[in-house]
Amino acid sequence: MPKNVGCFSFLNDFYTLLIGDGDENEKSSSRSSKENNYGPTLVIHGGAGTIARKDFSEKLQNEYLDALKESLFAGYKILLNGGNSMDAVEVAVRVMEDCPLFNAGKGSVFTIGGKNELESSFMIGTSDHPAGASTLLHTVKNPITLAKTLLLDPENPHVFLGGIEAEEYAKKKGLEIVDPGYFWTKGRWQQHLEELNKGNNEVDSLYPMGTVGAVAVDKNGIIATATSTGGMNNKKDGRIGDTPLIGCGTWADNETCGVSGTGNGEFFIRYGIAQDVSSRMRYLGENVNEAANAVIENMRKVGGGGGVIALDKYGHVAMPFNTTGMYRGYIRVSESIPYVFIF
Amino acid sequence: MPKNVGCFSFLNDFYTLLIGDGDENEKSSSRSSKENNYGPTLVIHGGAGTIARKDFSEKLQNEYLDALKESLFAGYKILLNGGNSMDAVEVAVRVMEDCPLFNAGKGSVFTIGGKNELESSFMIGTSDHPAGASTLLHTVKNPITLAKTLLLDPENPHVFLGGIEAEEYAKKKGLEIVDPGYFWTKGRWQQHLEELNKGNNEVDSLYPMGTVGAVAVDKNGIIATATSTGGMNNKKDGRIGDTPLIGCGTWADNETCGVSGTGNGEFFIRYGIAQDVSSRMRYLGENVNEAANAVIENMRKVGGGGGVIALDKYGHVAMPFNTTGMYRGYIRVSESIPYVFIF
Repeated sequence: MPKNVGCFSFLNDFYTLLIGDGDENEKSSSRSSKENNYGPTLVIHGGAGTIARKDFSEKLQNEYLDALKESLFAGYKILLNGGNSMDAVEVAVRVMEDCPLFNAGKGSVFTIGGKNELESSFMIGTSDHPAGASTLLHTVKNPITLAKTLLLDPENPHVFLGGIEAEEYAKKKGLEIVDPGYFWTKGRWQQHLEELNKGNNEVDSLYPMGTVGAVAVDKNGIIATATSTGGMNNKKDGRIGDTPLIGCGTWADNETCGVSGTGNGEFFIRYGIAQDVSSRMRYLGENVNEAANAVIENMRKVGGGGGVIALDKYGHVAMPFNTTGMYRGYIRVSESIPYVFIF
Repeated sequence: MPKNVGCFSFLNDFYTLLIGDGDENEKSSSRSSKENNYGPTLVIHGGAGTIARKDFSEKLQNEYLDALKESLFAGYKILLNGGNSMDAVEVAVRVMEDCPLFNAGKGSVFTIGGKNELESSFMIGTSDHPAGASTLLHTVKNPITLAKTLLLDPENPHVFLGGIEAEEYAKKKGLEIVDPGYFWTKGRWQQHLEELNKGNNEVDSLYPMGTVGAVAVDKNGIIATATSTGGMNNKKDGRIGDTPLIGCGTWADNETCGVSGTGNGEFFIRYGIAQDVSSRMRYLGENVNEAANAVIENMRKVGGGGGVIALDKYGHVAMPFNTTGMYRGYIRVSESIPYVFIF
């Protein structure tokens, strides 16, 4: 068992847990029929991008795998106790927002102007398609909780709020507000400076790495999706990415699937990636694995790097990506085993 | 011929033009085969919503119809001279942004805080799906030109910019910047005050009215879509609507269609309306009329009011709406007749 690091604390409960491998993932995700209903299931990602094995120490890999397991375990406890998918994905994402390893909440990348500018979205798969989203945040500790609050607030007629007004709304609703300096981490600041020093003062040439997301289905067959990010390293201040855009980085529909995306956000926007997975299931009759893989392969063909996690109401999981790695994992209440993967 | 009002000046060239009726519209839009290629075509809308005939004087109806014709004529001249669809939709939208009758640019509605907060998007139907979008603008005279500039700028790696940084970008690119007071109009200010006085200090209970959009196909079969709005009357400050969201209020794909939406923006976001029209054509094989009508009918069933204009590369037009009216029209280079409609 790798040594725990600061951002996860539940692993003592988890001594029997396995770290899965790619084969296990594929075996699970390739099941195409609805014969099996796996019941409550949670799938998460912690970002897709260029991850070179040679530059990635075993120690750091284990830190990521443990952090993924902590996120899975947090959501799993909700589902195990009969809780709903909305609460499960919220806590799973909050664990990753609070963990500096991921590019969301604490540990977010910096804009070219040296700010952390956060965004998030939330969606429920019921037929009324509830959704909430926020962007251009500098002081909301957990952007995912803001998106969920917007979704649930009966007095809020809007899906999407941005900027100072979104922060004021969060404060009014009692969400935790932090000094912008809370999000600063040494590693991300160095990434920011390195890019600036390279003379690449427009945008990081690498894919963004570390957007986080979760999709869950609960005992009632209701799917919820949550996505949160700091965006792209050295993005322009004021840039809005795919993460808060319903249909681009996030989607949920009980009749098809929930989807959360990570990767080159502009491609997710221009090709409506998350919604396209759902549309292929609805209109072509593809299963979640076929649809998610087709969409990510199509994105690769047009030059877009990234991946998605997707989940149908029967608990079928798909986690395709076209980059060298994607932090990802899933857990089912019926198995109680967290499967976590990087490559 | 109705008397011209200030915001259109080209109508003297247009004495032979007809004002179409609903039958003409339906006849045209129901053509389903690709046997006819109508060539370069422009379709526009000036907003959908609750329009009561009895409260709508003939004089005012004629002002709207004339303004729609001026918009059509501006884009038509581009297409007639062999220009591209991108330039055609830009000028068509700019005419409506500059006209105080519509809820975009000058004449935009107010936020609950008493501001005009504008947004826009632009998309091209080529296989690389270029797109640009902007939101939370207070000083950019023509938001549609900002979205187009973001799309075309080879140094801009992003699709979507919002807030002060978007305005600074616009200024740097030489776009016309105005004092926020430029957008003020007496009629919209009264709407704002009336809603406040009703005690309805959250959001206008009526559908937003007057978002503008244009879709065109040029001689090369390239589709462009442009959408611009002031949003929803008495929306929260900081609310981002469907108009700047690719896949929600705007879409373009040469292989399916271009779409621009207007109506209850939150429904357009939660159901991915614009992209859904395209997905039905791509995956179900529906024609543009079938797809657009199905999507607007589905939106009606879940309580969403609004409409779309949609256009395929052969010039087939669809303009369905589920409200009592939608300002709309189209013109083909092959006919040189602007058809304009309200009910």
